[in-house]
Amino acid sequence: MGKQFSHLDASGAARMVDVSGKEATARSAVATGVLRTTREVLGLLAADDLPKGDALATARIAGIMAAKRTSELVPLCHPIGLSAVVVEFELGESDVRIRASVRTTDRTGVEMEALTAVSVAGLALHDMVKSVDPAASMDAVRVERKDGGKTGTWTRPEGR
Amino acid sequence: MGKQFSHLDASGAARMVDVSGKEATARSAVATGVLRTTREVLGLLAADDLPKGDALATARIAGIMAAKRTSELVPLCHPIGLSAVVVEFELGESDVRIRASVRTTDRTGVEMEALTAVSVAGLALHDMVKSVDPAASMDAVRVERKDGGKTGTWTRPEGR
Amino acid sequence: MGKQFSHLDASGAARMVDVSGKEATARSAVATGVLRTTREVLGLLAADDLPKGDALATARIAGIMAAKRTSELVPLCHPIGLSAVVVEFELGESDVRIRASVRTTDRTGVEMEALTAVSVAGLALHDMVKSVDPAASMDAVRVERKDGGKTGTWTRPEGR
Amino acid sequence: MGKQFSHLDASGAARMVDVSGKEATARSAVATGVLRTTREVLGLLAADDLPKGDALATARIAGIMAAKRTSELVPLCHPIGLSAVVVEFELGESDVRIRASVRTTDRTGVEMEALTAVSVAGLALHDMVKSVDPAASMDAVRVERKDGGKTGTWTRPEGR
Amino acid sequence: MGKQFSHLDASGAARMVDVSGKEATARSAVATGVLRTTREVLGLLAADDLPKGDALATARIAGIMAAKRTSELVPLCHPIGLSAVVVEFELGESDVRIRASVRTTDRTGVEMEALTAVSVAGLALHDMVKSVDPAASMDAVRVERKDGGKTGTWTRPEGR
Amino acid sequence: MGKQFSHLDASGAARMVDVSGKEATARSAVATGVLRTTREVLGLLAADDLPKGDALATARIAGIMAAKRTSELVPLCHPIGLSAVVVEFELGESDVRIRASVRTTDRTGVEMEALTAVSVAGLALHDMVKSVDPAASMDAVRVERKDGGKTGTWTRPEGR
Repeated sequence: MGKQFSHLDASGAARMVDVSGKEATARSAVATGVLRTTREVLGLLAADDLPKGDALATARIAGIMAAKRTSELVPLCHPIGLSAVVVEFELGESDVRIRASVRTTDRTGVEMEALTAVSVAGLALHDMVKSVDPAASMDAVRVERKDGGKTGTWTRPEGR
Repeated sequence: MGKQFSHLDASGAARMVDVSGKEATARSAVATGVLRTTREVLGLLAADDLPKGDALATARIAGIMAAKRTSELVPLCHPIGLSAVVVEFELGESDVRIRASVRTTDRTGVEMEALTAVSVAGLALHDMVKSVDPAASMDAVRVERKDGGKTGTWTRPEGR
Repeated sequence: MGKQFSHLDASGAARMVDVSGKEATARSAVATGVLRTTREVLGLLAADDLPKGDALATARIAGIMAAKRTSELVPLCHPIGLSAVVVEFELGESDVRIRASVRTTDRTGVEMEALTAVSVAGLALHDMVKSVDPAASMDAVRVERKDGGKTGTWTRPEGR
Repeated sequence: MGKQFSHLDASGAARMVDVSGKEATARSAVATGVLRTTREVLGLLAADDLPKGDALATARIAGIMAAKRTSELVPLCHPIGLSAVVVEFELGESDVRIRASVRTTDRTGVEMEALTAVSVAGLALHDMVKSVDPAASMDAVRVERKDGGKTGTWTRPEGR
Repeated sequence: MGKQFSHLDASGAARMVDVSGKEATARSAVATGVLRTTREVLGLLAADDLPKGDALATARIAGIMAAKRTSELVPLCHPIGLSAVVVEFELGESDVRIRASVRTTDRTGVEMEALTAVSVAGLALHDMVKSVDPAASMDAVRVERKDGGKTGTWTRPEGR
Repeated sequence: MGKQFSHLDASGAARMVDVSGKEATARSAVATGVLRTTREVLGLLAADDLPKGDALATARIAGIMAAKRTSELVPLCHPIGLSAVVVEFELGESDVRIRASVRTTDRTGVEMEALTAVSVAGLALHDMVKSVDPAASMDAVRVERKDGGKTGTWTRPEGR
């Protein structure tokens, strides 16, 4: 009750909220997501695990580069410096788990940067596999944990 | 069997595939996705349905603008002109359904543009609601149908 | 009466309007604007008319480059190819007149590209002169004429 | 007398001036502008004040996003972090007044960011209204005040 | 004699030259370049030829993505669609040869796109190897051949 | 021996390396390069040294603007603020020497920003001269010196 979206003012107008009173401190966030596709696709991705196979590297680079452009994509995000971005993949039987970790020393958290890295790495994979599986689906794109800032550590509650 | 990712050459190297032999024809694609959050957030979003509430408009604009930048985000996508982009939201009890429709008259399909619009509209909503629900999750980002081009109409099969 | 903004649908939602039914034809537009500043600034800009003076060149390049990015800046503009962009300056006693001409062969007019070229060339001049005249003002940014497309030639009416 | 544009060196060559000796301190700027159009357009914009009307929200988002890209548009601007951006509109009888406020904690002022937000919000409005009023004009884009930094507060003098 | 840069008008002002009179036809270009570094670096790059080694993939993606952004980087280049981009590497004893091939069906040639792909793939390699060899050097970035358009095929003359 | 590319982890995966433990200190870098072309082109560039000649200014602006976008072009570069960028040209008999100096107060060096400024200024010159000399070549793009950070001053060794 009484809660409001911090990105809207009292009249409902969107704004980039003022963080000038916050301290520039170390902050980090981890986000994950899953591209659900077919065993056939996973076979091809695993084969890509051979010399020069660029499929996963392409998606990793897409995710890292997108993290840097978060504030260009998400209208009310603050432009900030990033001090580290890692994007990892775990190949399942018919899915690819994506995990992005982002660090900064700035005035805002980096959940959106981690979510953007996961989403765009997923889009790049989607693009790669769509000639074989046009029905692939990106699921469970979400924040797993965040550290730093005034609110400290937040860990995703079980059951969500 | 024998299938390969068209984005990789025989040695596994990534490339932007040659579409110069394809015809510039009318093509369209529809993609959807769902942001799963809480009833509390949906109450706030519905209230935003009042004068000047910018939450959904912000996400809609984010999605439309992202569709235009697909080839900057997805490494092997062709830069193409877009002739229409529509982003729609349907508010559920505790989720927001996102739907993007994209049209072009060019040499490639626009599934990636539609998926990018959905993903980034979702990121913008995620950003907006995270102060109230940090555990929101983006799900089921996928192509629903595509039309045009050599392969004609594709509709998502049931059960995928 | 009964008129509506074409960029909004019946419910008021923003969209990139469908131009797929339009023909790709030659179109052009001319826009102008005026940076009002001081005689002192104009003296410095005129002196820049000497070898290697980069002030006007910087603003011209800014305007040309911005025209190419119009669809990234203006949310509902279509991404299109441009076949010519010219940005010209006319130095007055205490003002600089800016004029941009843009041509395309595509499905939409290029008024916005011409207006964007003028606005950003003006911003670049503003930036250049602000250390000498922080009170400079950009005025009368407007379309002078457009040609081509279904509506043909439009010329700015006198008195507007 | 003896004044020079700080963006040009002694030979007239453009450069991004060295601010490494400046302190990163709180700075802010306010800029304004006016889109002059018709009563008919203002009637439509006011009607947009109803549920889901996206016209003003679209222009607001365009202005906020452009502020973040100022250093990409204005060639000699420094890339800096922004800690707050607010874009406001005031509807008159036949004009829309635009006001942007920007804050940072960095080594340069943010007048250009505020001017860019106003200009691009104006371009987005221009785009929206041009189907109804192709003769709209953007006027009086200027800095109203700036605070912080070595020079402290500057307020626009009357009569300029 | 009598020759002039086509990008400058009679007064020397830069412009995006008018190509609206040119036909949209198939055009292609090949550019090459060489990153000269050390045997030690080449040993590491060759080892990267093993599973999951991302060094060359990262540079390849950088080159492909940069080709798409040529008109954002090179002020007077026309924004055009690209129908194919291929970036290849050949590892020598102490150098890496880079080769980019680009195709379009548009109104201008794509030499600049091929040169941009080579340059930025080179920058990405430079970035990768600089912790081991800070003295690496990029050499011989040049057009090897171009096809299509009014001037037809051009091949680099021997001795240049 | 035992050296590795810092941009790759133990498994060879690309990452943006964690600089959060580094201090934000003053750093600078100088890079150079040479566009080798013909005497005819140099004659035209020298003539451009007259009033309003925009050729060199265009290349200078391209280099300065590209320095600001380094982290968008080079996949594993950190996004950082820049406090100064200078791009200089020296006209030879048949070549143009390009030199870029970049300064920051941040957690990483700015060699890549200086190299990017040189490369893109070179691309812009290449674009300008290609109608007169299609065989121009960009050579010797390299770091000359860097200062600041933990490793202090590095100067290019003779013979490299």
